[in-house]
Amino acid sequence: MSQFKLSAEPAHSVWDRSLEPRLRISPGDEVRIECKDASGGQVYPGMTVEEFQKIDRNRIHSLTGPIWIEGAEAGDVLQVDVLDIEHHGWGWSSVIPGLGFLRERFSTPYFFNWKLEGGETRSLAPVVLPLRPFLGVMGVARADDGQFRTRPPGSFGGNLDVRELCAGSTLYLPVYNKGALFSCGDGHAAQGDGEVCINGIECPLDATLRFQLHKQRPLAGPMVEAREEVVSDSWVVVECGDDLVAAARNATHRMVDLLVSRWGMEEVQAYVLCSVALKLRLSQVVNEPVYTVSGAISKQILPKIELF
Amino acid sequence: MSQFKLSAEPAHSVWDRSLEPRLRISPGDEVRIECKDASGGQVYPGMTVEEFQKIDRNRIHSLTGPIWIEGAEAGDVLQVDVLDIEHHGWGWSSVIPGLGFLRERFSTPYFFNWKLEGGETRSLAPVVLPLRPFLGVMGVARADDGQFRTRPPGSFGGNLDVRELCAGSTLYLPVYNKGALFSCGDGHAAQGDGEVCINGIECPLDATLRFQLHKQRPLAGPMVEAREEVVSDSWVVVECGDDLVAAARNATHRMVDLLVSRWGMEEVQAYVLCSVALKLRLSQVVNEPVYTVSGAISKQILPKIELF
Repeated sequence: MSQFKLSAEPAHSVWDRSLEPRLRISPGDEVRIECKDASGGQVYPGMTVEEFQKIDRNRIHSLTGPIWIEGAEAGDVLQVDVLDIEHHGWGWSSVIPGLGFLRERFSTPYFFNWKLEGGETRSLAPVVLPLRPFLGVMGVARADDGQFRTRPPGSFGGNLDVRELCAGSTLYLPVYNKGALFSCGDGHAAQGDGEVCINGIECPLDATLRFQLHKQRPLAGPMVEAREEVVSDSWVVVECGDDLVAAARNATHRMVDLLVSRWGMEEVQAYVLCSVALKLRLSQVVNEPVYTVSGAISKQILPKIELF
Repeated sequence: MSQFKLSAEPAHSVWDRSLEPRLRISPGDEVRIECKDASGGQVYPGMTVEEFQKIDRNRIHSLTGPIWIEGAEAGDVLQVDVLDIEHHGWGWSSVIPGLGFLRERFSTPYFFNWKLEGGETRSLAPVVLPLRPFLGVMGVARADDGQFRTRPPGSFGGNLDVRELCAGSTLYLPVYNKGALFSCGDGHAAQGDGEVCINGIECPLDATLRFQLHKQRPLAGPMVEAREEVVSDSWVVVECGDDLVAAARNATHRMVDLLVSRWGMEEVQAYVLCSVALKLRLSQVVNEPVYTVSGAISKQILPKIELF
C-alpha cells in the first residue's frame, strides 16, 4: 500500500475518457486529493454578489483527476473509502437565477460567505450548523467518447450530492474504462437532502481516499456504505400531492415560510439553510394519486422556540 | 386534564364530517384509543393468503373516532401529542395485485405474518427489525361535505404514513370543522420511507394521545415534531433519473435485488422488508434533468456480510 498526494491543478471540468491520467496507483493505495471549490478557485472569501456573477460557470465543477487505477477494466467495481476530509475554514452558497428548486420565488442573484470553525459554522447565527464535509462529485470516466458537462450524475457517479458520503463512508462505482479514471471535487462542508438552492456549503476540501478494486462484479449504479449518523429531534413539514416534485417543492416552500415566520430569518437565508440542512424524504409513494413528502430540520441547529 | 378510553368499535372507514362524535373531550385531555388493524379486525394471526384475498377491502382503513375537541373551530391548529403506543404482539404485510410501488414485478397475492416481541421482530430471521409503532392515519374531518375514501392523505392529515410519528412525537393539523372531529387508525409496528409494497407491519395498536388546541393559527398542512432518532450504519443504493418516481422505483428494485443476491432473501420477502425498513430520500432535486434518489437499509437489521 502506498500513499500519494495529488494537487488541485490542473483541474478539469468535463467528463472525458480521453483525458490523460494525472496519477497512476494500485488497488489498496491511498491518495490525499486536494480539491478546489466547485468554481475552481474563482470564488474567494468575502466575495460580493456582483463579483460572483462574473465568474466563468463553464469551469463548474472543477475536478481533480483523473486517477488511473492499475488493473481496472470495464465490468469491475471501484471501491472508494473516504478516510478523511478537511475543509479550509471557509465556504460559500449562492442563488443563481434560473437554477434551484424554488427558482420562481428566488430569482435575484445572491451570495453568502460561510466561516467554518472546526466542526461547525455560526455564520447564520444563532443557527449552529454541524459540518459533515463530503465531495459532491466522485466518479469514473463515462462509457462513451466525448466531453460531458458534470452537472448531471449517472451510473458512473459524478455529481451525486449524497450527503452520507462524509469521512467513514464508502462509495462503490461501476468501472467503464481501463484504469477506471477517477475524478472528484465539488466539496460541500454540509448539505441538506435535495440541495434545494443549488448549493451546499461549497468549499475547497482535502480528501484522503483509499481505492480498492473488485474484479467483474455486477453493479447497476453508485452505492454508498454509510457510517453511523445521529439524526436528532427535528421539525418536519409534511406535504401531499399527486406530483412528487411539486410536493417536495411545496415542502421546501413551507420550511422556508416556517423559518421566516417563526425564527425571523431573512427569506433568502432560510432558503440557503434549507439547501444545506433540510432532510427531504419520500414518506410514501404508494397511496396514489397522492404522495407524501416530508422535509425535516434538526432542532439542534435552531434556537429553541415554541412553534405553536 | 381528564383521561379517557375509546374502544375500537364501532369503527368508521370514510372521512365524513357528518359522523356523530363518539367522545367529547377538552383541550389538554388524554385519550387511550384502541385501534384495530387497517382491515378492521378481518385479518388475524396465522391467516392464509387465500383467506386474506376474501376480506372486504372497503373496510380499509378502519378508524377509531371521531373525537370532538371542545372549542375547536375552523382556522385552529390541533396538536396531537403521541404519548404511548403499544402493539398486541402480531402484525401482517401483504402484496395486493395492482397496488404497490413495484406492482409490475409483484403481481401475485402474498400475505406475511409477523410475530412482534417487545421492541423487535425476528419473523424474517436472521433479520432483527426494531419496532417503532405509529398510527399511519391520524386526521381531522375534511372541509367538504360527503364521504371520502381514506387512502389519499391531504392537508387534513389522514393516511400520511410518516414513520416519524411514533411515541414521543407530535402531529399538528389544521382544523376545518367545529370540534375538529379527530380519527385515527392504520397501526404500523414499523414502516420504511415509501411503504413500497403497500403495507407497513399492519397491526392493532393502543395509542395514548393528548390533544391541545391553538386558536386561529396559520398552518398549511400536517406538520410533525419528531423525537430523537438514531440512524445507524446503512447500505444505500443511489439511483439517478429524470423522473423522480421512476428513480425511486429503480432504487427500490435495486435494494430488492441486493437483498436477494447478497443476503439470499426470498424475492417477495425482500420486497416486504423494503416496505417496512427502506429509507427513501431525495438526495438532490436540482441537477436537472437528473435527480438523485437514495434508498437505505440499516446494517443493524441485517446479518453482517462483505458486500463486495
